[in-house]
Amino acid sequence: MKALVYHGPGEKGWEEIPDPTIQDDKDIIVQIETTTICGSDLHILKGDTDTRTGIAIGHEGVGTIVEVGAGVKTLKVGERVVVNCMTSCGTCDYCKVGLTSKCQRCPNGDSWQLGHNISGTQAEYVRLPLGETSTFHLPEGVTDAEAVLTSDIFSTGYEIGVLAGNVSPGKSVIVIGAGPVGLAAIKTATLLSPKIIVAVDFDENRLAKAVSQFGATHAVCNNPAVNPNWQDEVRGIVGTAGADVVMEAVGIPASLEACFDLVKPGGNVANIGVHGHDVNLPMGALWTKNITITMGLVNMTTGPMMLDLIAAGVLDVKPMGTHQFKLDQMLEAYEVFGNAAKNNALKVIITK
Amino acid sequence: MKALVYHGPGEKGWEEIPDPTIQDDKDIIVQIETTTICGSDLHILKGDTDTRTGIAIGHEGVGTIVEVGAGVKTLKVGERVVVNCMTSCGTCDYCKVGLTSKCQRCPNGDSWQLGHNISGTQAEYVRLPLGETSTFHLPEGVTDAEAVLTSDIFSTGYEIGVLAGNVSPGKSVIVIGAGPVGLAAIKTATLLSPKIIVAVDFDENRLAKAVSQFGATHAVCNNPAVNPNWQDEVRGIVGTAGADVVMEAVGIPASLEACFDLVKPGGNVANIGVHGHDVNLPMGALWTKNITITMGLVNMTTGPMMLDLIAAGVLDVKPMGTHQFKLDQMLEAYEVFGNAAKNNALKVIITK
Amino acid sequence: MKALVYHGPGEKGWEEIPDPTIQDDKDIIVQIETTTICGSDLHILKGDTDTRTGIAIGHEGVGTIVEVGAGVKTLKVGERVVVNCMTSCGTCDYCKVGLTSKCQRCPNGDSWQLGHNISGTQAEYVRLPLGETSTFHLPEGVTDAEAVLTSDIFSTGYEIGVLAGNVSPGKSVIVIGAGPVGLAAIKTATLLSPKIIVAVDFDENRLAKAVSQFGATHAVCNNPAVNPNWQDEVRGIVGTAGADVVMEAVGIPASLEACFDLVKPGGNVANIGVHGHDVNLPMGALWTKNITITMGLVNMTTGPMMLDLIAAGVLDVKPMGTHQFKLDQMLEAYEVFGNAAKNNALKVIITK
Amino acid sequence: MKALVYHGPGEKGWEEIPDPTIQDDKDIIVQIETTTICGSDLHILKGDTDTRTGIAIGHEGVGTIVEVGAGVKTLKVGERVVVNCMTSCGTCDYCKVGLTSKCQRCPNGDSWQLGHNISGTQAEYVRLPLGETSTFHLPEGVTDAEAVLTSDIFSTGYEIGVLAGNVSPGKSVIVIGAGPVGLAAIKTATLLSPKIIVAVDFDENRLAKAVSQFGATHAVCNNPAVNPNWQDEVRGIVGTAGADVVMEAVGIPASLEACFDLVKPGGNVANIGVHGHDVNLPMGALWTKNITITMGLVNMTTGPMMLDLIAAGVLDVKPMGTHQFKLDQMLEAYEVFGNAAKNNALKVIITK
Repeated sequence: MKALVYHGPGEKGWEEIPDPTIQDDKDIIVQIETTTICGSDLHILKGDTDTRTGIAIGHEGVGTIVEVGAGVKTLKVGERVVVNCMTSCGTCDYCKVGLTSKCQRCPNGDSWQLGHNISGTQAEYVRLPLGETSTFHLPEGVTDAEAVLTSDIFSTGYEIGVLAGNVSPGKSVIVIGAGPVGLAAIKTATLLSPKIIVAVDFDENRLAKAVSQFGATHAVCNNPAVNPNWQDEVRGIVGTAGADVVMEAVGIPASLEACFDLVKPGGNVANIGVHGHDVNLPMGALWTKNITITMGLVNMTTGPMMLDLIAAGVLDVKPMGTHQFKLDQMLEAYEVFGNAAKNNALKVIITK
Repeated sequence: MKALVYHGPGEKGWEEIPDPTIQDDKDIIVQIETTTICGSDLHILKGDTDTRTGIAIGHEGVGTIVEVGAGVKTLKVGERVVVNCMTSCGTCDYCKVGLTSKCQRCPNGDSWQLGHNISGTQAEYVRLPLGETSTFHLPEGVTDAEAVLTSDIFSTGYEIGVLAGNVSPGKSVIVIGAGPVGLAAIKTATLLSPKIIVAVDFDENRLAKAVSQFGATHAVCNNPAVNPNWQDEVRGIVGTAGADVVMEAVGIPASLEACFDLVKPGGNVANIGVHGHDVNLPMGALWTKNITITMGLVNMTTGPMMLDLIAAGVLDVKPMGTHQFKLDQMLEAYEVFGNAAKNNALKVIITK
Repeated sequence: MKALVYHGPGEKGWEEIPDPTIQDDKDIIVQIETTTICGSDLHILKGDTDTRTGIAIGHEGVGTIVEVGAGVKTLKVGERVVVNCMTSCGTCDYCKVGLTSKCQRCPNGDSWQLGHNISGTQAEYVRLPLGETSTFHLPEGVTDAEAVLTSDIFSTGYEIGVLAGNVSPGKSVIVIGAGPVGLAAIKTATLLSPKIIVAVDFDENRLAKAVSQFGATHAVCNNPAVNPNWQDEVRGIVGTAGADVVMEAVGIPASLEACFDLVKPGGNVANIGVHGHDVNLPMGALWTKNITITMGLVNMTTGPMMLDLIAAGVLDVKPMGTHQFKLDQMLEAYEVFGNAAKNNALKVIITK
Repeated sequence: MKALVYHGPGEKGWEEIPDPTIQDDKDIIVQIETTTICGSDLHILKGDTDTRTGIAIGHEGVGTIVEVGAGVKTLKVGERVVVNCMTSCGTCDYCKVGLTSKCQRCPNGDSWQLGHNISGTQAEYVRLPLGETSTFHLPEGVTDAEAVLTSDIFSTGYEIGVLAGNVSPGKSVIVIGAGPVGLAAIKTATLLSPKIIVAVDFDENRLAKAVSQFGATHAVCNNPAVNPNWQDEVRGIVGTAGADVVMEAVGIPASLEACFDLVKPGGNVANIGVHGHDVNLPMGALWTKNITITMGLVNMTTGPMMLDLIAAGVLDVKPMGTHQFKLDQMLEAYEVFGNAAKNNALKVIITK
């Protein structure tokens, strides 16, 4: 089959590799019909991760089951499924409490298998270990292009931003970073009816979309060259005491540190961003502030709910898919997504 | 009246100052029958705080009401009350959600009034602003020496350590720091039946008490000179993945950083310690760990419950009171408490 | 002043009674600018309650403060407020845990004072005991006609239906009864993004409005003469196992019993209706069903949040106000509201 | 093998039946080393259930795995396990939310398989469908006699009484019925440190044990012949407003109706009892009372936690096992348990 193969930092190709085969009786093989590219795929290509070389990358996808292992009971060949970015057994001690991203039955306890330890979804076929507990049925009324956005991006924004951040009706929310995951957090925050959602980003295009398409009520540019007092502008909107919930969706120390400053006493800081550096926690100021700070990987426990809301028309994820490609245009898709700001791109939808 | 008056860093005296008088119709005047000294009183005397000079310090106490303002309806002269370390109105927006430590009706929005902005409880009499909502009735069956320990120390350990840390039956708990507030957290953690409570401290005397009198199941010395691999010893007890709940009850960066290391994926770090320095948050390692970090001032919302449990014999706070003094031995009491380790002291109980 | 005075079952008049005066230093006097009529006012006139005769009835209102008691600190003459249907002190043991409808500082522990034990809001002026904790400031951007709907009806639907019923994103919801409080429950349920909301009622007009104006996704007529198998129709929508949340907003045994039948295992039955009769609880079938049943009076704790959401444009309550009258048209307003179905009336908005 | 075989109402025998064999690749076979008898086994023998004839009854047990199906990965022959009274897959929609008692992968969606639809644990061997997700490992430090008490009785008392009833530190609790499950609820309520636990029962022996061995603080006889005003006596203990939590552990209408009367406004009624009759819900009085009523089958989600607490010495379940028998004394064990009051019996421990 053809796949987007990783050969080490900066090196990738759309190449022929062997078709996947069942290796464990809980495996399933899925023919990929729709996939996409994640910011973390770009991190892989920069060499920021310990991803194996020679494998297909990608951990988001929708497709049709073409083969199942002998121990698979609840899925059948021909059924259509949404791939979970996290692989999990559903029954170990962590999975039982909903912490599937820490599943103990994955090699090395690493729930991020696809496109990291084994070949992933930017390929014509993918082998999914623990397939029954690592996919969702694609419900009627949800298109592939919508469903693939729940494999990771909308689930992450909702679970790690909105739920961990304790968004609830009437609260004020700030989301720093209006890239795909930040916009997903903004959109899914609207499911819980906050009174204010302030999108914060350097990019005016993204800010405009945050308001017009994703449900932000306000937008503030935090480019210090343009708006050095952006935090004052934010306080002008949410109040001088800060916001009830502040989410970080960038992954750099300065923006997480801004969250600590902008959160209201008694409020929540929810980190969604992928971080590679230490962050300063100013405990001298914070220890009296009664705040809660959360962080973590998505557990995909809300995936079926999110698919239901898309089917019901309650959640509109479509504006996230800005560009369409075919699988054999994979390199072109990477080119567009890798220069997202220039291309005004959010997620690229790549179909068979 | 006589009072322990603060005159600036390093300067204090047991001196005559004017008796307090009603200044607002919600004030009450209480004759102090029992008080104690808090670690933060020592911080005041070191000059670490912005405490006013010329006032009596102290924010813990039990006594009898001797005068009430014209607007006081639910308290009467002659009734015995426990003083809350935090002053609050009970009805502003913060108070309504239980965040009384951020009460907006206190001058400067500063709920820490007693012994900080106005004269406090280490005195023969004290004026309590917002007296109805800043005291608890002393129930039958609770001694003064027990009740004074709920003015701050046991309430702080329980609310900021145990409740914020989400202790529940069967969990594993580590408490770093076995001084008074750490021991209060250990003792009140037992109310929720964790399976393991590991006390961690430099001082072997305190560790011994943690186990024999406060309910810790294990004790580990974290003096690096004595036990350089103390974190390994802790992991040997709670498991290599760490503990469900890790509390910091010291107030120094190294011990909070140890909490980030020792917490299990999905677990809680609850900061109780008073911090004056920045702390390093290693987000590169933590962002995938699905942890929750909390911190804050006590709100005293659980005070009446705690008094009830003492009266019912469910919570035994008595081991915390290690030394007894009379009010006019206040300077001697400071001498003992100020050298707590040498004197094997926890809290000193000072009575009329 | 003029007021709608209750003279016993079936007897009322728009009459002159003495202006209210301050009787306690926490009282405030409000000039009513907008009020409305509640279903319970009709119950009063039928003689179903123990309401005092000779008083003005009504417990919903918006107006301007014209006088405050000596102990009132946080409200001033000239400020505009929304009247809470429940009177409460904010600081007794029940109020402290948010159960203000059980406030212990009201005469007889009866939080329903207005238009029940003392003169209420269907009058030119009203005396509000415990005024500071029994009103909300009217925020900018909310009209009187919107605000008066939070005095009771929307708060009740949200607190007792939606929150007690544990509505959350993706759930299925059935609301039996599409009168004002049922429609308020439907509308406020949408704040939490369920996937399905089935409105059930006898009246086709109300069902049509439930869908077109209040956010129901489906409507089912439960008039047995018209639709004897209505429960099957509901199951066809929510699934044979039933719905996650079923609310009763009628107040008759048959509809609450239908809730027990239509709730899914693990789900919630939230009673909002006012009941006068015993209901059969079929424990032989229910004891294995793992359901939760809730009921109660509104506590008004969510009132300010709801006003904020109206101001922010997140919650649109306007369709509830179907008819407008002036205060001196009070009897005409009763005529319309008392024959609501015939008049296609929901709430009548009565202004100065 | 030998087993206690049910032959229809009133008919049972300790008889030879065929050894169980693996029928599905997720099955395991366990040699029973310890079992016990449940009140519901007596209901089966009275003909109150739809239990199949010709099968062994019993759903509690501890034993050693002697055979595993080809699809079993996490259990091995020779490992010792505690049998769950409920059979569940762990991954269907109900199981994923912790509602394993409604598992959709059991025949007829009936999670009560053992000793009901298929042969159970009062036998030398038992086949356990879905063995990996329907057993717990027996931890070190827990005896068989302790562990068998978590198969149903202590788990039911804790999950359906204590957790569903929302017991927390400082609350007042009433448990009506001091039979095995009521005593298990009392004992596990102490894990959450209520201030008062009132045991209510007809039998003075059980009441005495409730206090001396299970942690009740008070005991009240509700035999109307002896103590016609028992409810007044209970109010004398918990206060006239009632208790925060009232549990029903008998299974008759009168005692559940007493719960509705004795619960405090804002409190919880948790039904644990097995009911066969309709119960009267006096909504005219209750609709304003802001109470929560719960009921349901145990889901066994807390089993491993409970085993940990037994191993840690935090939870002492031993007083529940009052009589010991060998498997071939099964009929004698039934004789004693069937006349529990006369024999002063709680649970009988039956070993190989």
